[in-house]
Amino acid sequence: MKNQPEPLYTPESVAINYTRDLGLPGCFPYTRGIYPTMYRGQLWTMRQYAGFGTAAETNERFHLLLDAGQTGLSTAFDLPTQMGYDSDHPMSTGEVGRVGVAIDSIDDMRTLLSGIPLDRVSTSMTINATAAILLAQYIAVADETGVPRDQLSGTIQNDILKEYIARGTYIYPVEPGLRLITDVMAFCRTELPRWNTISVSGYHIREAGSTAAQEIAFTFANALEYFDRAAAAGLRVDEIAPRVSFFFAAHNNLFEEVAKFRAARRLWARLMRRRFSASDESARLRFHTQTGGSTLTATQPLNNVVRTTVQALAAVLGGTQSLHTNGYDEALSLPSPEAATLALRTQQILADESGVADTVDPLGGSYYVETLTSELETRVMAYLEQIAEIGGAAQAIPFMREEIHSAAYGHQLAIESGERVVVGVNRYRDESPAPVLPRPDFRALESAQRERLALLRAARDPAAVTASLQAITRAAAGTGNLIPLMIEAVKAQVTLGEISDALRLVWGTYRPE
Amino acid sequence: MKNQPEPLYTPESVAINYTRDLGLPGCFPYTRGIYPTMYRGQLWTMRQYAGFGTAAETNERFHLLLDAGQTGLSTAFDLPTQMGYDSDHPMSTGEVGRVGVAIDSIDDMRTLLSGIPLDRVSTSMTINATAAILLAQYIAVADETGVPRDQLSGTIQNDILKEYIARGTYIYPVEPGLRLITDVMAFCRTELPRWNTISVSGYHIREAGSTAAQEIAFTFANALEYFDRAAAAGLRVDEIAPRVSFFFAAHNNLFEEVAKFRAARRLWARLMRRRFSASDESARLRFHTQTGGSTLTATQPLNNVVRTTVQALAAVLGGTQSLHTNGYDEALSLPSPEAATLALRTQQILADESGVADTVDPLGGSYYVETLTSELETRVMAYLEQIAEIGGAAQAIPFMREEIHSAAYGHQLAIESGERVVVGVNRYRDESPAPVLPRPDFRALESAQRERLALLRAARDPAAVTASLQAITRAAAGTGNLIPLMIEAVKAQVTLGEISDALRLVWGTYRPE
Repeated sequence: MKNQPEPLYTPESVAINYTRDLGLPGCFPYTRGIYPTMYRGQLWTMRQYAGFGTAAETNERFHLLLDAGQTGLSTAFDLPTQMGYDSDHPMSTGEVGRVGVAIDSIDDMRTLLSGIPLDRVSTSMTINATAAILLAQYIAVADETGVPRDQLSGTIQNDILKEYIARGTYIYPVEPGLRLITDVMAFCRTELPRWNTISVSGYHIREAGSTAAQEIAFTFANALEYFDRAAAAGLRVDEIAPRVSFFFAAHNNLFEEVAKFRAARRLWARLMRRRFSASDESARLRFHTQTGGSTLTATQPLNNVVRTTVQALAAVLGGTQSLHTNGYDEALSLPSPEAATLALRTQQILADESGVADTVDPLGGSYYVETLTSELETRVMAYLEQIAEIGGAAQAIPFMREEIHSAAYGHQLAIESGERVVVGVNRYRDESPAPVLPRPDFRALESAQRERLALLRAARDPAAVTASLQAITRAAAGTGNLIPLMIEAVKAQVTLGEISDALRLVWGTYRPE
Repeated sequence: MKNQPEPLYTPESVAINYTRDLGLPGCFPYTRGIYPTMYRGQLWTMRQYAGFGTAAETNERFHLLLDAGQTGLSTAFDLPTQMGYDSDHPMSTGEVGRVGVAIDSIDDMRTLLSGIPLDRVSTSMTINATAAILLAQYIAVADETGVPRDQLSGTIQNDILKEYIARGTYIYPVEPGLRLITDVMAFCRTELPRWNTISVSGYHIREAGSTAAQEIAFTFANALEYFDRAAAAGLRVDEIAPRVSFFFAAHNNLFEEVAKFRAARRLWARLMRRRFSASDESARLRFHTQTGGSTLTATQPLNNVVRTTVQALAAVLGGTQSLHTNGYDEALSLPSPEAATLALRTQQILADESGVADTVDPLGGSYYVETLTSELETRVMAYLEQIAEIGGAAQAIPFMREEIHSAAYGHQLAIESGERVVVGVNRYRDESPAPVLPRPDFRALESAQRERLALLRAARDPAAVTASLQAITRAAAGTGNLIPLMIEAVKAQVTLGEISDALRLVWGTYRPE
């Protein structure tokens, strides 16, 4: 928020009707939380995002985090996996295993999940353009290990619209690419009833430099687009909405962030009821939060522990359902085990020592926070009306992109002028240079991954591969649901790159204007 | 607070009358803050407590902190200085310079303050039984350097009652030892109008294991005792109250701590008006806060950055006037320069990045915080009535000591049973042992300090020494104000131990029953 808040808020600042605008937690419009007892009943899920190198290395980090008391998994994938290229594709050179784990085939997925009880631990996967393929791999591994599909719980991000707007890991054109979302929703409705089919993400919008109001507005615009399309495909809102979750950022401004989460819950409930006549359950905004990676600094890295603590507190006071706290060294590299453990300890201290989980919505009633909550709701609603006039999110991609760029530019200018302070960067600098960590050499990893892939290609049944790829191209050109075909392909050891290519063949690729 | 809070607070939980119980910041009863614009007008003073080894070493740390952006100084003294022993006294062996700086004479004070602009930087000194002597030394150095006395600003702790109750660095019996407090008040009223003559301290009461309510109640009981005695000595409350400040702890329970500070402001204002017909200005509770040293853990020391952030936030949301944030390694040793700098950065990030200083009393109106504030006020008031029945704080020392012990014992049991979680200690332990830092060897420092002292004793005028000590014993046996005589003695190079001995001779020493 650019505008300074007022110096003082009093009862006269607040224009809410308690019953209408706040109400009880667990009841519409859910401003105070989506469950009646919130963290008194059950704490948020501590879900640290992890992934790097090979499936085996990431599997080891998963076990470290589970042993340290983490309660859910969250996977980062490398760029080739996100973009639909196998590790041996020329586009993958230098990127295999770098920003996340490299997954080419069911073999890698099997290694990634080794020793993880899939019926008890929920798994989140940050994957979008290739989300359906990763989900197919996950299901195939569960099928192999005998875990019933209806026991699987987890989340795929699967939010392609924000890729066009803010993050950039898209493959296909908006049309017909968006169809993958509805296919996943339709498939999971019957087959994976506990799976979150989409995590509509404001996180990357915020990290790209948006304001808090833009983060919520653009995320909701995207979500409304998905729901509209699902409705057009014949899916009833109350069948799919309970498995749509959200993903937001928690940045530094403590009270603005808390108000943002509260405003988001209230407005989403109202939108769902008004637009889709959704049931109260479908109108509940469930969300994961990650602390703001872009707020971390490479200089004075331990300052980031302080920032992350404040941001995590915002998420908890805002009533998040799950939380990732960043490691203090993430501005420099992938988090070290020490930094990853301290990040988890940050959540544990908030949960067990700070008392903030003892009562529901502890800031409820604060003159300042209630006023901010209402103001944010108003600002988000204004954006949603603008986007509706443009014709919805799919049409408004350039508008949203432009709004974010302009906010990010203003933010940057404010830092450069010193109007906005970043401790250790434009004020309170010290002599010590930013630590330079050794940049890991991924070349050995990359060639080993390519060798494994070559062995897999050599050993599989080529006829089965061809048949399953042809089934996919046929369905892509038609209307059949793609997910069962992808599961079959994955089981025939078809790779992620090959499935993506089959769709590229039919759909083409997206070119931003 | 032992009792769990309610799962939910709503408008019906809150039984306040806004005008009577909250009102505007800067106005009676000051619940929302003692200034109209609070941190929008001026941030809290970032005042890191520092002191170790020799005066020269501490002076170097002072300059480091001022260069890093700190805005006020705060001095820790070693035990001999606190207990009235010179560095060459047999009782001092092994303790010289260990927990704070060793100050024997005006020479040491001169070194400690070298290069510090005494007319611009305010200095706080954590000193009690020997507070009058340290103040005399400070004034003597200011006189030498030509800084007018009415320009000096700072604080001496000078709160002897809590030493008997919780901290233990007392020398003289309660009677007539308490007279030193009134002498300082009377002297400063005319000579050092900007000096805070006493910092009535709940910090050590809390650190000894008290509850939040006890912390405020026992501190206020002590303060009322000082005011009663000042009134008996003929000092008008409005002449002395504006220079009496308070010192509290900020522990982990975020909302309880914020409510504690708000309740303390409101109750103190009411007590001052009711009991002493004090002016509104005299009824304002000004306080320094330190984060809770006893909450820090030696294992997983970086976890302490998280705790300190939450605690610092409590102090700021509670409206503190100045703040010390602990270094993360203080459970292991004196803070390293890195830890001391990060502790200061913690305050700077809260001030400049978190937005919490943007508006006054941001939690005002919260159903939870307002309810807790009222509950704490009630509990504190009940304790004050009990203490009044016993006959006031000086009479109630054993009662308060017993109450604290019993709270501390309950706290310890709760940790041992696991009912109360300490992350990294009784839950989420890891394999890595607590780092063992090299224990510094103070022997060389101690003998150098003794050599300097021997040179000073050899070079001074023995007749002047004798004369000024005789003047002190005479006044101690009579009723004359001791402070001007101490300043004279300090200028004649009389040592802290010698002045303390002169008073011991007349007053004897305290023996706890």
